[in-house]
Amino acid sequence: MLNQDTIVALATPSGAGAVAIIRISGNQAIAIANDVFRSVRNKDLTKQKTHTIHLGHIMDGEKTLDQVLVSLFKNPNSYTGEDVVEISCHGSVFIQQQIIQLLLRKGCRMATAGEFTLRSFLNGKMDLSQAEAVADLINSDNEASHQIAMQQMRGGFSNEIAKLREELLNFASLIELELDFAEEDVEFADRTQFKDLVNRIEFVLKRLIDSFAVGNVLKNGIPVAIVGEPNVGKSTLLNALLNEERAIVSDIAGTTRDTIEDELVIDGIGFRFIDTAGIRDTKDVVESIGIQKTFEKIEQAQVILYLFESLKFKVQSSEYITEIEKIKNKYPQKPLVIIINKVDLLSESELNTITSQLTTDNCQLSTISAKQKIGIEELKNILLSFVNTGALRNNETIVTNTRHYDSLLKALEEIQKVRFGLESGLSADLMAIDIRQALYYFGEITGQVTNDELLGNIFANFCIGK
Amino acid sequence: MLNQDTIVALATPSGAGAVAIIRISGNQAIAIANDVFRSVRNKDLTKQKTHTIHLGHIMDGEKTLDQVLVSLFKNPNSYTGEDVVEISCHGSVFIQQQIIQLLLRKGCRMATAGEFTLRSFLNGKMDLSQAEAVADLINSDNEASHQIAMQQMRGGFSNEIAKLREELLNFASLIELELDFAEEDVEFADRTQFKDLVNRIEFVLKRLIDSFAVGNVLKNGIPVAIVGEPNVGKSTLLNALLNEERAIVSDIAGTTRDTIEDELVIDGIGFRFIDTAGIRDTKDVVESIGIQKTFEKIEQAQVILYLFESLKFKVQSSEYITEIEKIKNKYPQKPLVIIINKVDLLSESELNTITSQLTTDNCQLSTISAKQKIGIEELKNILLSFVNTGALRNNETIVTNTRHYDSLLKALEEIQKVRFGLESGLSADLMAIDIRQALYYFGEITGQVTNDELLGNIFANFCIGK
Repeated sequence: MLNQDTIVALATPSGAGAVAIIRISGNQAIAIANDVFRSVRNKDLTKQKTHTIHLGHIMDGEKTLDQVLVSLFKNPNSYTGEDVVEISCHGSVFIQQQIIQLLLRKGCRMATAGEFTLRSFLNGKMDLSQAEAVADLINSDNEASHQIAMQQMRGGFSNEIAKLREELLNFASLIELELDFAEEDVEFADRTQFKDLVNRIEFVLKRLIDSFAVGNVLKNGIPVAIVGEPNVGKSTLLNALLNEERAIVSDIAGTTRDTIEDELVIDGIGFRFIDTAGIRDTKDVVESIGIQKTFEKIEQAQVILYLFESLKFKVQSSEYITEIEKIKNKYPQKPLVIIINKVDLLSESELNTITSQLTTDNCQLSTISAKQKIGIEELKNILLSFVNTGALRNNETIVTNTRHYDSLLKALEEIQKVRFGLESGLSADLMAIDIRQALYYFGEITGQVTNDELLGNIFANFCIGK
Repeated sequence: MLNQDTIVALATPSGAGAVAIIRISGNQAIAIANDVFRSVRNKDLTKQKTHTIHLGHIMDGEKTLDQVLVSLFKNPNSYTGEDVVEISCHGSVFIQQQIIQLLLRKGCRMATAGEFTLRSFLNGKMDLSQAEAVADLINSDNEASHQIAMQQMRGGFSNEIAKLREELLNFASLIELELDFAEEDVEFADRTQFKDLVNRIEFVLKRLIDSFAVGNVLKNGIPVAIVGEPNVGKSTLLNALLNEERAIVSDIAGTTRDTIEDELVIDGIGFRFIDTAGIRDTKDVVESIGIQKTFEKIEQAQVILYLFESLKFKVQSSEYITEIEKIKNKYPQKPLVIIINKVDLLSESELNTITSQLTTDNCQLSTISAKQKIGIEELKNILLSFVNTGALRNNETIVTNTRHYDSLLKALEEIQKVRFGLESGLSADLMAIDIRQALYYFGEITGQVTNDELLGNIFANFCIGK
């Protein structure tokens, strides 16, 4: 599995910048780098210490490609666990290409996506869930997803799994031992202690599985649908929430025909806002496609914002109330916020008249002016109240990865079989099968059990150079 | 002028990648980095050697922002000549921002464009023309522009200027000394030697000024206009030369109404191809604007390609010949290549008939099939023959920067005045004024003479982080 050749890739984002990093890893990394490097102080790279930096030029024969800094990391004290060289060159795309092409000619091979991290995993520098966290960390774009990825990368989650797996492995070997002495009917594994462990494992697995519901939305952002008839200020509200101009805002009713998604981070939590074309009755074919899309988007949303305009309530209050009830009935499980926009155009008594007509059971009320930015902060707080940030605040282990979630579910199923076996006095040989199966799923998470296809799928999602 | 505060910026291209580099420079750089860094081996960064790398975490209080590598460069052994710290973090945009914001809170200031290189210049690590070469190097996208920028960055050009300036300075002080003894009518400066020096300077200045014509096109690419009536395959030729699909190719005559520019690198030399709408007579208003543009573009081009279709020559040979003569007369100085496209549709005798009718004085003939990719390599060689790559091959100093060119022209003017003064026996006090003026322009190039506005203009074109 472990490939011994020397790989190279650009590690910094593509494009021009002040500096670019070209990373080399493998047992020929330092020799190849030394071959193309001319130190300003005539240093031989192969004789330098690990974690040192050297100034010089990359030479293609007698042609100078660039003045660079070369950083050395000696096996095993490197990211991959192999010898690693990082060349810090001027950030011209041309120079990057020239140096990489030179290194390829000198015996390096172009790294595949995530191959540096794959080698790190294969060399035992990190387990599989930690490797996966590296990709999550690079993709994290808000406080919550960053914190979860950091925790996973530092092994919070896999340490817990690995510890339980070890304890289970211990009992498994005792049970297997009993099989060798099957004739003598001895019990090496203390059944009471074993039952305790199985209960403990079941408890942890259930907690981790439950955390996925929170973890998944924290990682990907909470989807929020903004619903309301055209021209009530949905786009303006979106802009007020985003505090910048993204959606097309115009005075023509029905401008926002396509659903526009935009992300807003409130208190470190990501929200994906889905601006919809509204759900009024219409004869316009394009519009009616938009309405259909609105319903599809509400299905995907976890929170619904229903928006209407204060002054219009007088003329069509019954219509609004009917529509709100329709949404409540159609999506009883989804939190609903009724938002009255343009409140700055109403007197206090007029506002009271409106709110008195709206029943606020199973929903919340928010009065705003998207244009004047009144009530926007209060609305943000309402949105935050829908997110269970307790686990995050308490720094608990949160599962965000669908692959881990699947393995945890399967492990739980097997552990429950084991518990059932224990309770019903199942024979050791049958119980051993279930235990082995549970161990297998545990190992899948941390990478103790793995195969090429699984690894291929995981690292294909990495960028090249990581 | 020299600011003592500590600056920070992202040094790698913006966006997500495997790795990002955050660069800090200034006398508080190491102290500030140490303040936010928790080494895995409890190292104190302020006590570490220069050019060493340290693994640890960036901490915002007790919150871990990222696992990073920190590289130390101690004054004066750094890019800027100050203490420099480079933080290599995971390439998530969120993490980059978090770390930079933390460093700003800890006392760093956001670097302005090119400020690291400006400090390098102000600290005497490089002269001004070398600093300018850094920006050229980052922008270089082909062999020629890269080679010129590399040479300039290594000081080839400014060393020459600096040496001449020193010799001139020597004579200047002798001449100034004569002024102090004006009553006694002595000559400290040997006029023969001085005349020699002035001649030498004049020769070098003229060579450098002449090199700008080559240098400027090598840096920016040689503009080549492709002219011909619509639908003769200009876009197809462009694609064949580019070896990819960029221009819009269609069978409708007059598709290419806008002039499309594309760059192609042949043997390390950049060519900018200008596809024009052709110059046939037309009643279409949009087309006639296109024709006007064609002529404007030919004005800018250094080489003209005139393209026609083999089969059409039979029916309208006189028209083509007239048009070719028109172009020859209008642009007698510009190299012209007559290209016969779709030669694969002709027999050899038919082709001979055509070529015999075309006078090839002051122009070259090229027979191709853009579609079948026949004759494309030969055409590339013709194009290369128009470029004077001698200076490049001989690694001569080439001026590419308009600012340098201007200063050189002005310096030459002053030196010619000095020579004229010497020849006509001008008094020392008047000659001293011209010499001082010449010295001033020399100093402008290398940065010995400078001002805030000049530096502001130069470094504004840099990227932030360099």
